[in-house]
Amino acid sequence: MKDKLSIIKIGGNVVNSPTEMDLFLKDFAALEGYKILVHGGGKIASEVSASMGLEPKMTGGRRITDEQTLDVVTMVYAGLLNKKIVSKLQGFDCDAIGLSGADGNSIRAHKRVVKDLDYGFAGDVDAVNSGMIESLLRSGLSPVFCAITHDKKGQLLNTNADTIASELAKGLSDQLDVELLYCFEKDGVLEDVEKKDSVVEHLDARKYEHMKANGQIAEGMLPKLKNCFEALEKGVSRVVIGSPKLLKDPQRKHTTLTL
Amino acid sequence: MKDKLSIIKIGGNVVNSPTEMDLFLKDFAALEGYKILVHGGGKIASEVSASMGLEPKMTGGRRITDEQTLDVVTMVYAGLLNKKIVSKLQGFDCDAIGLSGADGNSIRAHKRVVKDLDYGFAGDVDAVNSGMIESLLRSGLSPVFCAITHDKKGQLLNTNADTIASELAKGLSDQLDVELLYCFEKDGVLEDVEKKDSVVEHLDARKYEHMKANGQIAEGMLPKLKNCFEALEKGVSRVVIGSPKLLKDPQRKHTTLTL
Repeated sequence: MKDKLSIIKIGGNVVNSPTEMDLFLKDFAALEGYKILVHGGGKIASEVSASMGLEPKMTGGRRITDEQTLDVVTMVYAGLLNKKIVSKLQGFDCDAIGLSGADGNSIRAHKRVVKDLDYGFAGDVDAVNSGMIESLLRSGLSPVFCAITHDKKGQLLNTNADTIASELAKGLSDQLDVELLYCFEKDGVLEDVEKKDSVVEHLDARKYEHMKANGQIAEGMLPKLKNCFEALEKGVSRVVIGSPKLLKDPQRKHTTLTL
Repeated sequence: MKDKLSIIKIGGNVVNSPTEMDLFLKDFAALEGYKILVHGGGKIASEVSASMGLEPKMTGGRRITDEQTLDVVTMVYAGLLNKKIVSKLQGFDCDAIGLSGADGNSIRAHKRVVKDLDYGFAGDVDAVNSGMIESLLRSGLSPVFCAITHDKKGQLLNTNADTIASELAKGLSDQLDVELLYCFEKDGVLEDVEKKDSVVEHLDARKYEHMKANGQIAEGMLPKLKNCFEALEKGVSRVVIGSPKLLKDPQRKHTTLTL
């Protein structure tokens, strides 16, 4: 039987709140077994950009990662947020180690191919160094990933944190029994986005297609759910979307995804 | 016989020059055996501070690490510089992993005790997690340390990079045969600071005291040399001060320190 690994993605809105984040990190530290944390960026990168007088670069409604933006997200995600999270976890007696995809070549990506739009230094993941990550886990460390990857040719890249969580889950599911939890400000996927308690407790691919067709799934949720289903297809044992409070209270309402 | 470990500290002036830094990182990547890189901060932290409209906090001529300054150095040292260095080394086929002292609790420190002056979030080192660092080295990884530590209670701290290099060297010298190289813009300790080629090739404690008494050693060199002699006293095999070009050309003039 494979050993269990929990991969928890914590979203930007939780990261933005020091109080919520502290509660969450305490619960993460208390989790038993192998665990990995993946954190989003929150609004701090925009605040730092603004304080440096940088304007967000947008093309066709999409944010573009130009060189200055890449520097800012590298500073904020891999520096400020990642190290604050790691030091807090260490304070809660969790032996955390912060990583970008460049560290130990843990996540290799390539600059997104230019088709209609040049996204700049946005990285699409090619490979997860599962051997290295597994050996960190087996030595008692809990990796904390920010959403920065690299191309193994000296270039850092900006990658979506949901995708990082799902790629890690897929990449480690050969060796470990992986559970993937996406924690964000809601209790799960909602039947009706206006009703906080309308949580869909079981979401399979069929219901997902149905909800998508009905316009019940908001735009931001689509790539997250795509990541979830891909993870299940690639052998991840359990994929859940819900509140960070799930860590302490697993009975709390949440969405479990199935194929 | 113990295995050899090279610890290379690269100074701020080299970090400031992308061309010199690239050459240095290529040479570091080509070094054989176990190796650790420690990098200083350079002027980028001051530039980022200035662009964010932060004034450097000074008291009695000393820079004070207040909370905002700590955030900036964490962003710049642990984020921007550390990850750029790691991704470049990965590009040169060196399996680098970037670490702050919080990561894997690798370097634990305490906030400097307030006597005459409150230095703010400046950290004095208490312990190096040599077991964890050795196991990273043995697994083929080359740690790259920035000058950020933590207190194991959730607080990040700003620590001098020369001190980090010397503490790592001391902490690892039980298990490994450690060589410590301080690389900076000069070829070594100079008899006459005005003459670039007046390198003192052998500096022992007696000559050091003599030069200090004569005012031949500039203020910035004093703590560096103190770190060097402390490292030798604690069992570090070889301590050298010189140019980053030493890595490629070990015959180049440099200063070797002895007790």
